[in-house]
Amino acid sequence: MSQTIFILNGPNLNLLGTREPEIYGATTLKDIEAECASHCKSNGWTCDFRQTNSEGELVSWIQEAGVGGAALLINAGAYTHTSVALLDAIKSLDIPVIEVHLSNIFRREEFRHHSYVSLAATGVICGFGATGYRLALDAAGSQLSGNV
Amino acid sequence: MSQTIFILNGPNLNLLGTREPEIYGATTLKDIEAECASHCKSNGWTCDFRQTNSEGELVSWIQEAGVGGAALLINAGAYTHTSVALLDAIKSLDIPVIEVHLSNIFRREEFRHHSYVSLAATGVICGFGATGYRLALDAAGSQLSGNV
Amino acid sequence: MSQTIFILNGPNLNLLGTREPEIYGATTLKDIEAECASHCKSNGWTCDFRQTNSEGELVSWIQEAGVGGAALLINAGAYTHTSVALLDAIKSLDIPVIEVHLSNIFRREEFRHHSYVSLAATGVICGFGATGYRLALDAAGSQLSGNV
Amino acid sequence: MSQTIFILNGPNLNLLGTREPEIYGATTLKDIEAECASHCKSNGWTCDFRQTNSEGELVSWIQEAGVGGAALLINAGAYTHTSVALLDAIKSLDIPVIEVHLSNIFRREEFRHHSYVSLAATGVICGFGATGYRLALDAAGSQLSGNV
Amino acid sequence: MSQTIFILNGPNLNLLGTREPEIYGATTLKDIEAECASHCKSNGWTCDFRQTNSEGELVSWIQEAGVGGAALLINAGAYTHTSVALLDAIKSLDIPVIEVHLSNIFRREEFRHHSYVSLAATGVICGFGATGYRLALDAAGSQLSGNV
Amino acid sequence: MSQTIFILNGPNLNLLGTREPEIYGATTLKDIEAECASHCKSNGWTCDFRQTNSEGELVSWIQEAGVGGAALLINAGAYTHTSVALLDAIKSLDIPVIEVHLSNIFRREEFRHHSYVSLAATGVICGFGATGYRLALDAAGSQLSGNV
Amino acid sequence: MSQTIFILNGPNLNLLGTREPEIYGATTLKDIEAECASHCKSNGWTCDFRQTNSEGELVSWIQEAGVGGAALLINAGAYTHTSVALLDAIKSLDIPVIEVHLSNIFRREEFRHHSYVSLAATGVICGFGATGYRLALDAAGSQLSGNV
Amino acid sequence: MSQTIFILNGPNLNLLGTREPEIYGATTLKDIEAECASHCKSNGWTCDFRQTNSEGELVSWIQEAGVGGAALLINAGAYTHTSVALLDAIKSLDIPVIEVHLSNIFRREEFRHHSYVSLAATGVICGFGATGYRLALDAAGSQLSGNV
Amino acid sequence: MSQTIFILNGPNLNLLGTREPEIYGATTLKDIEAECASHCKSNGWTCDFRQTNSEGELVSWIQEAGVGGAALLINAGAYTHTSVALLDAIKSLDIPVIEVHLSNIFRREEFRHHSYVSLAATGVICGFGATGYRLALDAAGSQLSGNV
Amino acid sequence: MSQTIFILNGPNLNLLGTREPEIYGATTLKDIEAECASHCKSNGWTCDFRQTNSEGELVSWIQEAGVGGAALLINAGAYTHTSVALLDAIKSLDIPVIEVHLSNIFRREEFRHHSYVSLAATGVICGFGATGYRLALDAAGSQLSGNV
Amino acid sequence: MSQTIFILNGPNLNLLGTREPEIYGATTLKDIEAECASHCKSNGWTCDFRQTNSEGELVSWIQEAGVGGAALLINAGAYTHTSVALLDAIKSLDIPVIEVHLSNIFRREEFRHHSYVSLAATGVICGFGATGYRLALDAAGSQLSGNV
Amino acid sequence: MSQTIFILNGPNLNLLGTREPEIYGATTLKDIEAECASHCKSNGWTCDFRQTNSEGELVSWIQEAGVGGAALLINAGAYTHTSVALLDAIKSLDIPVIEVHLSNIFRREEFRHHSYVSLAATGVICGFGATGYRLALDAAGSQLSGNV
Repeated sequence: MSQTIFILNGPNLNLLGTREPEIYGATTLKDIEAECASHCKSNGWTCDFRQTNSEGELVSWIQEAGVGGAALLINAGAYTHTSVALLDAIKSLDIPVIEVHLSNIFRREEFRHHSYVSLAATGVICGFGATGYRLALDAAGSQLSGNV
Repeated sequence: MSQTIFILNGPNLNLLGTREPEIYGATTLKDIEAECASHCKSNGWTCDFRQTNSEGELVSWIQEAGVGGAALLINAGAYTHTSVALLDAIKSLDIPVIEVHLSNIFRREEFRHHSYVSLAATGVICGFGATGYRLALDAAGSQLSGNV
Repeated sequence: MSQTIFILNGPNLNLLGTREPEIYGATTLKDIEAECASHCKSNGWTCDFRQTNSEGELVSWIQEAGVGGAALLINAGAYTHTSVALLDAIKSLDIPVIEVHLSNIFRREEFRHHSYVSLAATGVICGFGATGYRLALDAAGSQLSGNV
Repeated sequence: MSQTIFILNGPNLNLLGTREPEIYGATTLKDIEAECASHCKSNGWTCDFRQTNSEGELVSWIQEAGVGGAALLINAGAYTHTSVALLDAIKSLDIPVIEVHLSNIFRREEFRHHSYVSLAATGVICGFGATGYRLALDAAGSQLSGNV
Repeated sequence: MSQTIFILNGPNLNLLGTREPEIYGATTLKDIEAECASHCKSNGWTCDFRQTNSEGELVSWIQEAGVGGAALLINAGAYTHTSVALLDAIKSLDIPVIEVHLSNIFRREEFRHHSYVSLAATGVICGFGATGYRLALDAAGSQLSGNV
Repeated sequence: MSQTIFILNGPNLNLLGTREPEIYGATTLKDIEAECASHCKSNGWTCDFRQTNSEGELVSWIQEAGVGGAALLINAGAYTHTSVALLDAIKSLDIPVIEVHLSNIFRREEFRHHSYVSLAATGVICGFGATGYRLALDAAGSQLSGNV
Repeated sequence: MSQTIFILNGPNLNLLGTREPEIYGATTLKDIEAECASHCKSNGWTCDFRQTNSEGELVSWIQEAGVGGAALLINAGAYTHTSVALLDAIKSLDIPVIEVHLSNIFRREEFRHHSYVSLAATGVICGFGATGYRLALDAAGSQLSGNV
Repeated sequence: MSQTIFILNGPNLNLLGTREPEIYGATTLKDIEAECASHCKSNGWTCDFRQTNSEGELVSWIQEAGVGGAALLINAGAYTHTSVALLDAIKSLDIPVIEVHLSNIFRREEFRHHSYVSLAATGVICGFGATGYRLALDAAGSQLSGNV
Repeated sequence: MSQTIFILNGPNLNLLGTREPEIYGATTLKDIEAECASHCKSNGWTCDFRQTNSEGELVSWIQEAGVGGAALLINAGAYTHTSVALLDAIKSLDIPVIEVHLSNIFRREEFRHHSYVSLAATGVICGFGATGYRLALDAAGSQLSGNV
Repeated sequence: MSQTIFILNGPNLNLLGTREPEIYGATTLKDIEAECASHCKSNGWTCDFRQTNSEGELVSWIQEAGVGGAALLINAGAYTHTSVALLDAIKSLDIPVIEVHLSNIFRREEFRHHSYVSLAATGVICGFGATGYRLALDAAGSQLSGNV
Repeated sequence: MSQTIFILNGPNLNLLGTREPEIYGATTLKDIEAECASHCKSNGWTCDFRQTNSEGELVSWIQEAGVGGAALLINAGAYTHTSVALLDAIKSLDIPVIEVHLSNIFRREEFRHHSYVSLAATGVICGFGATGYRLALDAAGSQLSGNV
Repeated sequence: MSQTIFILNGPNLNLLGTREPEIYGATTLKDIEAECASHCKSNGWTCDFRQTNSEGELVSWIQEAGVGGAALLINAGAYTHTSVALLDAIKSLDIPVIEVHLSNIFRREEFRHHSYVSLAATGVICGFGATGYRLALDAAGSQLSGNV
């Protein structure tokens, strides 16, 4: 049976392509989901791609990834910077966790420089727009194959 | 003529594979150079891979990359956290700059959480060991091709 | 067709009139809704007045206001001080956003002095109890009419 | 009619017994619920034991406790450290509120040393694992009987 | 006899309409005075509208308002952020004090986010340009009539 | 031979019942000692209950508890917040250490929110007045019996 | 010729006896002036007692004291906490400078705990109400007589 | 029976006259005691003058003053800056407490600018050398006579 | 008509030559004015040289410079470090503004290291005593001639 | 007559060899005393070696060393980090003062990085276990002989 | 023999005229060197003008200036903000040291507001572009001639 | 073959004996080298004594010590306080590392109180001038012989 990669997206990412395009670009979340699904498929993985504005739902989905997933990609949006609950959920996992951000969060406001997700993630990829998701899938693949 | 990708490595990275392997793994910098060279070659790029313990030399090399390079990958090691000079050198470039770290710097000591390089880099990749360099080359390729 | 003013209320505001009346007064949220509806009506606006204890729902409602609303009044309650997600949602809007607080938050605990909402709102009105909503509606009207 | 004790549990506590057992032990939340129910029964109380990953739901349940409960035990998990909304909800109650944590939060990361819940709770019990719930019930009993 | 509303303006506000119009707009202080006077007149109030660059004079005028005024509107300009003397003067009053700012001070430099005036004012209105003065007069009216 | 529980009390606790009764209640330290002794007796433990105003004596007593005691209850009073010496003494023990405070220290002045004792104690109980000592004895019993 | 003692009072002290009597008492500044004059007279000194709300005037008066005065008593009111200009003026003097405050400023808001005046004054007397002026005169006398 | 004034001196004050005379002067503690005794006598008070290097003893003596004393003068030396235990002891008193320091502590190292004693003392006198004790006795007299 | 250079001096600078000569030297403000006037004359400029101890007057003079001046030299003395009002006044100018200090403020107390004036000035010259004014005039000349 | 070297040890050092041996080693304080005595003897010095858990006693002993000692070695244990009283006592000495710590305090918790003792000691030796005492004696000898 | 003025330039200044011209202008370092040489010549000085990206080389050059130079002009670039080594080197000199910056560093990022060089330099000139070097030479001349 | 002790000295230490003798004394680095060589010889060790102003060279030398050295003595001068690169190099060693400073860095400026070297060194010796090097050699000998 194929491995499932969870790709979880946090608050306001549903607006992608419309919100502040000078920061996040014109690509929509649908576009990214399509590219991820295609990239997963070519690797023989199942892609479980979701978005929510709710911190609690994100926590529950991370727990779900811990049960049924082979790896987790997470772009937690604004919750990245404020949610200890996400950190705790991720710490309960023993699968690779790749943190992704579209923008380079370190070139933005000070309060976006700190990430609770980073404290538990395997690694971080940020600043490459939608391409970051593909790179993150490759990173996950590398982790899964043990070729690190 | 092929494009040149500069891959610059900072202090103590020459020790890779021997220093604190529980953090940095057993791969040597030679191994990484070989993989980068090979990956570059398959993309039709020239790979200019260097290491130095000197902050000033790193500054000069970054300037050099600004003149002759198509993209810059930089793992500035400890200078990442202390060098405004690196930041200034990178700000003078108008090519993609990819910051790489072998370890997830956000899971280490507090003083490693801040990066002057990040303030000017296009994006950041950290926590994936030697694989991070290959991902960074892919990120550079994506930037160069305009497929972001 | 008449313009819609969204008036969104955050956590614990459903308790208004019962919780800590020495700070928030005896007026209930129902009372405020009635006054807002009446005031909107007299201005020819539709009033969409809601309350939730959920940060995620508040984010979604703000997004909704961005699509169908002419202006947004928001009393985000405690999320005011902790939610970057609200900030991001509000930044995606291009309609007037009026931040309202019943109490003067600057005369209360230190952690209530900072507002993420303020970083993106058009303006702020606080300390006037239920009257603040009516003033905020007038401010919105002023913004909408261009008489600033 | 018997008094109802609300026992509310926050994010990730549903993982108890599986997540990081070196910190939280092997007891599951079901085990704790059973022990609480039994302990309540022997005191002639009704036990209303719940868990949620949602901050908003936790706020609503606290409000509910304020209406129908005789006392509130709360282990708010990660929201302990970040949620002003919980604080506001608890401040609206006039029943005893006992804050419980399985681990001694003061021996963990710095960001777990601050609790918004503590600012309004009657008292705090932490570091005694599942036993802490039983102690908290006894504390609640002491408060209810006026034997403080 | 009609009630007097004091409207006191601090340093540099005499430049209004010429200084940094991208922040403060093109309206002059004379325009605002005229509108305030008219709005007061229609409410049956006397309007005492002044401006000074002197902190000490502002202190004296606030004291004067405490003796002869029914309410105080104050836009203390830069002294807002640095003057404990203003705070002390305002604390000596027992009439409604409305703090007004033309711009949303929370979207500007960090040192403008703190206001000594707010620590004693009844409420705050900021970010609505000249309209803010009219809203503040309405807020004062509401306070004076007891309809809060 | 019966196990000895050390119950050590720090500075000013001898004033209990007279000092600031609105914070600490009317119970005297003698009352607490009596209740502790009785509770210990019913558990088959010997109770060694002491009070001192001297930090150094408290350190020595903690060391003594480490030699002859089965568990330590400690209400270090004001030394809780300032004494690294206490921390070091407690770290030298390998018996359960229960920190007790009569008041909820987190609802008092900022400088009472930090406890050096907590950094080494098994757990903390605060805010329940004299009842806290009894709960702490129960906690100790639970630790000693291995039923955690 | 008799020596002159300058007694300078800062902003809002003219309100004494009316403003916040629970902090400052019912004595007026006139009362204090009378007592100071009398006390000076009995010591054979001339008393030059003044009050101003203006920081600049206070600076000028301090300079004046430096020329014609034997000692300076200063209650700088709110400027105590914010005025480097006062500090500089006082540093230019080579006569005894006694800082006086009616209230104990260390039991009030945090921002009143720091005094620029203290950094250059000979000594500080605070918390004794109007009596503090008399004590300060005695302190000045002691300084002038060399009996320190 | 005459009233007793407690005058308590903290660590290293026994060295007075020998330690760092450029800061503390050449007067010995014996000299000060003699002057205080004489000044007390002329006021009809008994003078109980003590010195200790022990924080705990100082706490006990403060408690003693609370029982048998009419007023307390305290120069807590270095414990001024570090002892919450002193603060708690002083808070338990309901007699006037005058804090004295020989030097102006605000002109010395940063860590001497904060005083726990000040948080509970009636008032503070510092910077006048041995004269400060006499002024403090006068201040105490003023408090006792109600002429404040 | 010749261009006017405003040279504005803040609090205590009237004391120059007498106050703390080890820091500020023996030159008086009159000497500096004479040298500036002479230097201006040789450049064909009118020199408007003033001093005040009043922050408000300084604000007004800066505004005046904005209307009639070709350039502004300002030594704001102690207001440099505390006055947002000066900053705002300077920001309203569109002529060169040269900040001058006699001493090197960065070798003095910490609170003199920050300058509100610097945030809006064209440039800063400090540490060269009276010579700094002549250098500043040359800098102004360079700005006015476009030879930067 | 031979010179006396005071070697003073602070709280919990009596536990040496039993407490946290992974940090402090297995050597007991008796062992260290023996080695110090022997090393002193071979240098012709008298060794006065003491330990106390009391801060006040440590202060008194330091004063004693100032009277009768030729040099002071001090391992103040936890009081190192919190005691201004120790600092003051040491500042009163004019003999060499050598601060010793068994462990490298800079590799331990943050609050152990600051030492009040260091602010007045001649020099510091830490991290070499019991050997540090012998090195400190040699350092003292070097100081006493003037061969620095 | 003529006096030599050392003019040392730090990292990235070799890029002048190409790097971020909106901040640093279009003038190249060669242009500045030419102007400095010319200005020196007309004053009868020898000009030793250098640039390096190496912190260590800058330290060595400063030492060299201490031996053979009459004055030092230094634009340490980014090392200004991070190098204690530069500070130490400059502190070893007893010739005038003039710190120069092309831009007004106080209008840029926060981390550029602090300068280690300023802590030891005679004075600072910044914000006047290339003109600053000429002003600095004049300042040096003034220092050398004793006309300060 | 004899063991080699590396003794590495950082920036400005070549100035020893000339730079700020009131802090560092009159001994030159040559003197220290001679004494170290002699002391090493008498212990049967080879002494490799070097100095550089370059951070990068220091890093390389530390790495060299890790390969061929038995122990490392390092006085990193100013880089002590700023260089994470030194820390990383030292962390790669598994030989004893002794940090030496001539002066007691804790009695100097605040920014000299933190040492990156200390975070990885075996121990620290500071404040004993040139004697410190000899003590450090003894400490190294003790480490090498296992007599710690």
